[in-house]
Amino acid sequence: MVKEIFEHRSIRKYKPDSIPSEIMQSVLEAASRAATTGNMQVYSIVVTTDPSIKEQLAPCHFNQPMVKQAPVVLTFCADFNRFMQWCSLRNADAGAYNNFLSFVTAAIDALLAAQNACLEAESHGLGTCYLGTTTYTAGKIIDILKLPKGVVPVTTLVLGYPSEIPPLTDRLPLRAVVHYETYHDFTDEEIEALYREKENRSDSRQFVAENNKQNLAQVFTDIRYTRKDNTAFSAALLEVLKNQGYM
Amino acid sequence: MVKEIFEHRSIRKYKPDSIPSEIMQSVLEAASRAATTGNMQVYSIVVTTDPSIKEQLAPCHFNQPMVKQAPVVLTFCADFNRFMQWCSLRNADAGAYNNFLSFVTAAIDALLAAQNACLEAESHGLGTCYLGTTTYTAGKIIDILKLPKGVVPVTTLVLGYPSEIPPLTDRLPLRAVVHYETYHDFTDEEIEALYREKENRSDSRQFVAENNKQNLAQVFTDIRYTRKDNTAFSAALLEVLKNQGYM
Repeated sequence: MVKEIFEHRSIRKYKPDSIPSEIMQSVLEAASRAATTGNMQVYSIVVTTDPSIKEQLAPCHFNQPMVKQAPVVLTFCADFNRFMQWCSLRNADAGAYNNFLSFVTAAIDALLAAQNACLEAESHGLGTCYLGTTTYTAGKIIDILKLPKGVVPVTTLVLGYPSEIPPLTDRLPLRAVVHYETYHDFTDEEIEALYREKENRSDSRQFVAENNKQNLAQVFTDIRYTRKDNTAFSAALLEVLKNQGYM
Repeated sequence: MVKEIFEHRSIRKYKPDSIPSEIMQSVLEAASRAATTGNMQVYSIVVTTDPSIKEQLAPCHFNQPMVKQAPVVLTFCADFNRFMQWCSLRNADAGAYNNFLSFVTAAIDALLAAQNACLEAESHGLGTCYLGTTTYTAGKIIDILKLPKGVVPVTTLVLGYPSEIPPLTDRLPLRAVVHYETYHDFTDEEIEALYREKENRSDSRQFVAENNKQNLAQVFTDIRYTRKDNTAFSAALLEVLKNQGYM
């Protein structure tokens, strides 16, 4: 059993203590041991500790306070830039990777590396939090981190020593995500049963009340992840992929 | 230190032994503990052990023998289907997730879960191998696994007891993937230095000779991951995203 996996929680409050360089080295090496397509290693990690750059990144992450509070911000990027430069130097067809599949391939590399970094950091007593905002504001992050063509940020992990230990997050029953042999599409009754416990939690009821909604699903669709935002962020992300050479 | 991270290698030869159900349970629970956007859990895992279904999946993975040889095939999918069905039942705007950003969000969930499953499996003595072919042939996998609209396979992990223990895979120097504060674009001399050791490895030289190429980069561009294939797979994957409701 990998105990870090079962003890993972997102940490949103950090002590100001910096992270010893040997621990950072171990986190980055852990990232680099993740599986990568054809061993091409088509990803990169930007390690940001400079307060002025973190200050610039903060609005990209909707000013969530941990971006400035946590000592280290890791931005994981899909990255064919280095690989294509190598191909060009070797008279090999670098243009083979200016396409959507290559973006997805590179994003997979970046995400598997990120999860290794997350778990390795936790094994050293660090707290972590993924920032899903990365794909919403990828264009601005590209400007701030000076990411060249071929490089697209896909997720961000903040790292630091936790000043809170929140409870483990609730999960749906495992049968909500696991299907045997082939996909089992749910009946409405099954959906009701899967979500019952979640909907009845006191924190869920509080979200519904605070947001003046009829139910928890509406908190997601009307407040947290809305059609308007998702539509705008989709257009922006597709534009980023075009600009970075992946469409 | 998470020792599984530093001992990971892709296993391509498996014993026929099946995996005890309590170990499978632990692997799937580990997957479900990974971070997920807004705790929406917008992914799913299809567990395939039926030889006749694995037989159908094999060509989707270019007939790599481990698909039939390994006792378990896990297909990780970006999946807003269940979440949208819940929204519909609650008179919430399920159509908020029929867009590209939502696919990327769901793919991130699926990939973080996959890496947890990989490491947890390894902690129980299992071997694993990711199959990058999943995104190349997603449309066929959708048919075989009966994935409904809203569900797109993004990676596959085969699991089983290893009958080989290959050496750790080589990696580029860490400075090839890690950038401090902002991105450092490489000079040609730096690229030469980063790839020197890899190019001089005896296995690399053998690939070049066997494929009758001038150098290792050309083995990638002309044989392994070609412009022609990447272009065709890109079009196919974009079509899958459209058909599954994400464009």
